[in-house]
Amino acid sequence: MSLPVLKNDVFLRALMREPVPYTPIWLMRQAGRYLPEYKATRAQAGSFMNLAMNPELACEVTLQPLRRFDFDAAILFSDILTIPDAMGLGLEFVAGEGPQFAHPLRDETDVQKLQVPDMAKLQYVFDAVALIRKELDGKVPLIGFAGSPWTIGCYMVEGRGTKDYRHIKSMLYGRPDLLHHILSTNAQATTAYLNAQIDAGAQAVMIFDSWGGVLADNAFDQFSLAYTKQVVSGLQREKNGRRIPVIVFTKGGGLWLERIADCGADAVGLDWTMSLAAARKRLNDAVALQGNIDPMVLFGGESAVREQARYVIDDFGKVGKGGHVFNLGHGISQFTPPEAVEALVDEVHTYSRSMHG
Amino acid sequence: MSLPVLKNDVFLRALMREPVPYTPIWLMRQAGRYLPEYKATRAQAGSFMNLAMNPELACEVTLQPLRRFDFDAAILFSDILTIPDAMGLGLEFVAGEGPQFAHPLRDETDVQKLQVPDMAKLQYVFDAVALIRKELDGKVPLIGFAGSPWTIGCYMVEGRGTKDYRHIKSMLYGRPDLLHHILSTNAQATTAYLNAQIDAGAQAVMIFDSWGGVLADNAFDQFSLAYTKQVVSGLQREKNGRRIPVIVFTKGGGLWLERIADCGADAVGLDWTMSLAAARKRLNDAVALQGNIDPMVLFGGESAVREQARYVIDDFGKVGKGGHVFNLGHGISQFTPPEAVEALVDEVHTYSRSMHG
Repeated sequence: MSLPVLKNDVFLRALMREPVPYTPIWLMRQAGRYLPEYKATRAQAGSFMNLAMNPELACEVTLQPLRRFDFDAAILFSDILTIPDAMGLGLEFVAGEGPQFAHPLRDETDVQKLQVPDMAKLQYVFDAVALIRKELDGKVPLIGFAGSPWTIGCYMVEGRGTKDYRHIKSMLYGRPDLLHHILSTNAQATTAYLNAQIDAGAQAVMIFDSWGGVLADNAFDQFSLAYTKQVVSGLQREKNGRRIPVIVFTKGGGLWLERIADCGADAVGLDWTMSLAAARKRLNDAVALQGNIDPMVLFGGESAVREQARYVIDDFGKVGKGGHVFNLGHGISQFTPPEAVEALVDEVHTYSRSMHG
Repeated sequence: MSLPVLKNDVFLRALMREPVPYTPIWLMRQAGRYLPEYKATRAQAGSFMNLAMNPELACEVTLQPLRRFDFDAAILFSDILTIPDAMGLGLEFVAGEGPQFAHPLRDETDVQKLQVPDMAKLQYVFDAVALIRKELDGKVPLIGFAGSPWTIGCYMVEGRGTKDYRHIKSMLYGRPDLLHHILSTNAQATTAYLNAQIDAGAQAVMIFDSWGGVLADNAFDQFSLAYTKQVVSGLQREKNGRRIPVIVFTKGGGLWLERIADCGADAVGLDWTMSLAAARKRLNDAVALQGNIDPMVLFGGESAVREQARYVIDDFGKVGKGGHVFNLGHGISQFTPPEAVEALVDEVHTYSRSMHG
């Protein structure tokens, strides 16, 4: 299979801390409900999972934001819960309540039954990756992704979103052996899943440790980072002669930055609670950084958007031997006015040039 | 008015980093729904606000946990939303949905009307403080409290609990002048409120900056800490010849620890994401520390409770010139088995003796 030449590799080069002319930008959940065209396709699909499981429609919504905005990367439209769904936990999206599992893992019997799923059950994801890659026609690179073993574990044990993580933390403190079995299974499944995305055409991969930040300082390494590290170390890092960079993002993980940066990833994602200048100083530019504007800045009007974008770029400073990919510190809100995104992309591309070369 | 002699001042002395024989302990929301006797009194009151606004009943629930557990401090039973309620925002507790305001502050007109409330409207709080102080009969000290100006501001603008803080952050980025007006009014009201609690008998006060951690690194100082600092600097710090220690707790504020510790408080509260050893090192024991076990440890069974309690005490280490008050890193869960609290208090009191003297 011959693939089109990549026309814009600024994102990939920034992740590898190579010189680039400007700071690349993409946004977490850039294909999403803030775009009317997304809502139309979603309505056509009937449900979120119908959309995610249909390669043509998933490809369509992946490409939609790139038709409007000058983003430097595309990200596969999918969900971190595809793996537990393939494990047979019975994923359901309940309107107004978010994702839920019909069969959460609560006791030893539930946990012992858990197995790494046959990747054939996730073929729809790999088909979507291949199709998107083809349809992108080399415009920008395609990012594949997965949740971290801990983060998908939270949903698998809790069965749904939670405020206090009571069920999984009860298991963590009371039956750590059961939790380690879940996390180990998740790590194996996630490694196979991301490698299959890379085989299908993903040019970079990101691991979302969205709930790592709820762990205690003395639990994070053992129950989240160790398994993320296991996934990272099992990934193929080169494909068709190009490096496949890996980004790891632990929301709320700023206190553990050195430990996270040591996990083997090329880049670490940061949320808005941490200064990029402070992060660079702590890591001495050992990895690239991705982030970190507050998604709520996009509600402040155009001049605030531009001012805060400049703040983040100035905070990172002269790029030098570092690498910076501009992003939000969390997924874009469904209520975001699309014109705010346009102003953000423009400001980042324009203003950042002075920090490069 | 002559008050009974304080029989147990270990908590107050630990806050002032004076030598104590063991590490004192109390728990955030120690008077609460995990206790059947609390639920009975709450049912008798009819509603949460009826309970909080009735000094006799508020006194009763404040004392309940002290009859069961060997806590080293009592904390006033009340709510951080009493101030906005006195400002006329119309506080309502909707079953299953938490507190809501009928009149949230959303535009310039709403904000311009806001005023520091007459403290007479909060007399029920000061009456409760005086009654509790009397009924405690010197058993342990009584803590008064308030929310930080930013944290109560979140409820005042959002009108209810929120996941994304969209309304207040839209104001922060789009109309910072309006938000500063709210926060300045909140700071004045909070200062008067806490000083009146001290006049009524509170022997220490705590400021809960529960939502400070959702702010961006470049917004936290300006929109939260500056106003907390204003409150701290306006508090009376001595009463009847004894120092009134001040504790400031910013949940999720670990990255900003040095800045928070510099706000003028005697002690800083920490959640479980930060190691106490790391915090001591960063602050060089300049303030006492309060915290920081994960409340979910209490669901792990007795041996996990004791083991994790020892971990926290060991992590703080030999107390020396420091000061440590043991606590959770957040409020106790309503589902907590009371026997887990008993094991925690016992372990902290027993095991910590080796770290003192």
